Amino acid sequence: MLTVDRPRPSDQVVAAAVDEPRLWSMHMDLAAIGATAAGGVCRLALSAEDASARSLLASWAGQAGWRLSVDPIGNLFIRREGAEPSLEPVVTGSHIDTQPTGGRFDGAYGVLAGIEVLRALDDAHVTTRRAIEVAVWTNEEGCRFSPGMMGSEAFAALRPLEKMLEVTDAAGVSVSQALPHVIAATPNASRRALGFPLHAYVEAHIEQGPELERAGRTIGVVTGIQGTCRLRVEVTGEEAHAGTTRRSQRRDALLAAIRMVHAIEQHVEAADPGDDVRLTFGMLKLRPNVPSVVASWAYFSIDLRHSSDEVMLRLAGEIEGICRKHAGGCEVQVTEIQRALATRFKGAAFDAVLAATRSLGYPYMELPSGAGHDARQMACVCPSAMVFVPCAGGISHNEAESATSTDLAAGTRVLARALYELANS
Amino acid sequence: MLTVDRPRPSDQVVAAAVDEPRLWSMHMDLAAIGATAAGGVCRLALSAEDASARSLLASWAGQAGWRLSVDPIGNLFIRREGAEPSLEPVVTGSHIDTQPTGGRFDGAYGVLAGIEVLRALDDAHVTTRRAIEVAVWTNEEGCRFSPGMMGSEAFAALRPLEKMLEVTDAAGVSVSQALPHVIAATPNASRRALGFPLHAYVEAHIEQGPELERAGRTIGVVTGIQGTCRLRVEVTGEEAHAGTTRRSQRRDALLAAIRMVHAIEQHVEAADPGDDVRLTFGMLKLRPNVPSVVASWAYFSIDLRHSSDEVMLRLAGEIEGICRKHAGGCEVQVTEIQRALATRFKGAAFDAVLAATRSLGYPYMELPSGAGHDARQMACVCPSAMVFVPCAGGISHNEAESATSTDLAAGTRVLARALYELANS
Repeated sequence: MLTVDRPRPSDQVVAAAVDEPRLWSMHMDLAAIGATAAGGVCRLALSAEDASARSLLASWAGQAGWRLSVDPIGNLFIRREGAEPSLEPVVTGSHIDTQPTGGRFDGAYGVLAGIEVLRALDDAHVTTRRAIEVAVWTNEEGCRFSPGMMGSEAFAALRPLEKMLEVTDAAGVSVSQALPHVIAATPNASRRALGFPLHAYVEAHIEQGPELERAGRTIGVVTGIQGTCRLRVEVTGEEAHAGTTRRSQRRDALLAAIRMVHAIEQHVEAADPGDDVRLTFGMLKLRPNVPSVVASWAYFSIDLRHSSDEVMLRLAGEIEGICRKHAGGCEVQVTEIQRALATRFKGAAFDAVLAATRSLGYPYMELPSGAGHDARQMACVCPSAMVFVPCAGGISHNEAESATSTDLAAGTRVLARALYELANS
Repeated sequence: MLTVDRPRPSDQVVAAAVDEPRLWSMHMDLAAIGATAAGGVCRLALSAEDASARSLLASWAGQAGWRLSVDPIGNLFIRREGAEPSLEPVVTGSHIDTQPTGGRFDGAYGVLAGIEVLRALDDAHVTTRRAIEVAVWTNEEGCRFSPGMMGSEAFAALRPLEKMLEVTDAAGVSVSQALPHVIAATPNASRRALGFPLHAYVEAHIEQGPELERAGRTIGVVTGIQGTCRLRVEVTGEEAHAGTTRRSQRRDALLAAIRMVHAIEQHVEAADPGDDVRLTFGMLKLRPNVPSVVASWAYFSIDLRHSSDEVMLRLAGEIEGICRKHAGGCEVQVTEIQRALATRFKGAAFDAVLAATRSLGYPYMELPSGAGHDARQMACVCPSAMVFVPCAGGISHNEAESATSTDLAAGTRVLARALYELANS
């Protein structure tokens, strides 16, 4: 066991060493990779932009002397060594992939807040008992390779790695084909097995909802994550000529899909007067998708979320029946592609975040997360927690996504204190 | 004036010279260009396949000694000279571009039947008084460059050439950029101005509907073409996170579009108990089109057809109001992109087709065309007519599209007699 070479500083020292301008500047540097004309970011998982962003993080780690490792799904870990290297590390982090028209803070904040904590610890000349690692989870968003949460799900052994490697994007490129390019972006990273033991996990994130802003609070201590169920519906009809085929003789896949979506929406509308169910049809594709041919094939996605597993699973279970009822002459196939039950954050990680928030004196509230996060998967393997900061108008998954430098720094100070506590426990 | 070097043969001789196996073999040769695995054809307008198909036609013309010309929109003409070259030619033809999942006969038949007639005239050593030309009209389908009917509409001066040249495909390639590649495929073609005078126009085509097959008739003498109105509807909402944004706070462009389509369909359903209105939503596009983001933008096409202009225009006029009513918080823009009133075939060309059909003794019926054809535009500039042959199940705009060699030959014999009559008048 190494000796800590200075008296243990108060956790205030570490939080005070968080450098707001440096944190903001890291955000702007990262946001430049995949920047869109509208001020957002397009940095799809396992793309050239993903690789460039990893290179940037690796260069920062190299300058600071932190060690890099990468696992078989491409999760990247940046480790600041502790006094007792054999102890399970405390991990923070998030993801750096974005939606095609994503913002500058979703995911990026959790990674950069983690790096800022490592820098603050360096500046304060603090050695923690346990190592602290910043995780960069692969493909959280799942828009290029679906479903998302690949890195954290593989890490937590919730889905088999081999299945993930087979997933292809719209151009037919598989994860196993795309992965080597991003892994090559961090040539100095050592290879590491999936799912090493963790002492605790804390993830910082923008709220992606309007509650903190509305309530005028700086910090959200996240109590859990609502459940999510994702389905895909495939409708097969028959191509026909728009000018010659009577409506009654058609097997129009688009019209059938539209009747299904309409009916599902009406059903949820009636069953959920409180507007608590999150129901999204975000993707719809057609073949052949030309104006003068009746569509022979339609595909749409359903994203269903609720804080009650019972409500979510009941609604999810009703969808296939509704689709069959409105299929007309078409065939329909409903497939559940992802299911995550509601997560409740508790234990040492949650307690550390709550204590850090209180001791720093920020206005805060406890709240559940509407969005899914990698922390959900981590909660399956170790005590986990999340820190939220406000984002303007609650807008996210949007190029207009925005957060203030002050709030980002406040959340990072909470993270710093919580990680410091956990790393010394 | 040249002298006809033999006694004028009976029109039976010309029809008898139509060679069924040769006609079928030309269809199979042409269908090999852009052939799909499912037995159909993908030969989009102004593509490499379009250019290859033009090369093939040009090689046949070269072997036979027929002359080629091409006009500024890429319409290709194959001319078999007449005894009096200064007279206005009689023109037949159709198009060789297809839908992305098109069949082997739509369009191709009209061009190849025309070439077979020229071959039959050569074999019978017949010189007609007027030249006969086979037209290959550019971009009838309009699925790569929308709207279609470009070649015949430019020829008939129904839309300005400059506007067409600006149209771009999904990849941003303009017609003016793509055109030189297909024009280069026929280097021996002389350049010709748009819209030279025609004596008459007759187009052979598969029916693309089920009426002939149902009635057990070999030939359809086409009385006209129903009117078509094409609209595009663009819906603008706002991107939002699927997990955090309440339904009531969303401006979901897909849901708004779906409500519009549903309402338009219900409206037409109620207004048209006889199922005479052809209403097709063949294309729908979304942005960003990923499962976990509320769509900020949706686009859909409406193809509306009816044999009564009054009914079609009334329904078309009601669509914008229905869309506005169901837009929710979204913005909506409805644009009419194409309108063609109903066409009635009459005069010398129609009479020649009817007389040819009767004299050849084929079972026939008079019927309107549900599909639009280049003959609609030709009817604006000269007496025009169409000959239909059955297609299996009425299926078209589909890789399974099918027609029998016997029926194709029968239609070509009718065409041969009709063209012969018109070219000697």
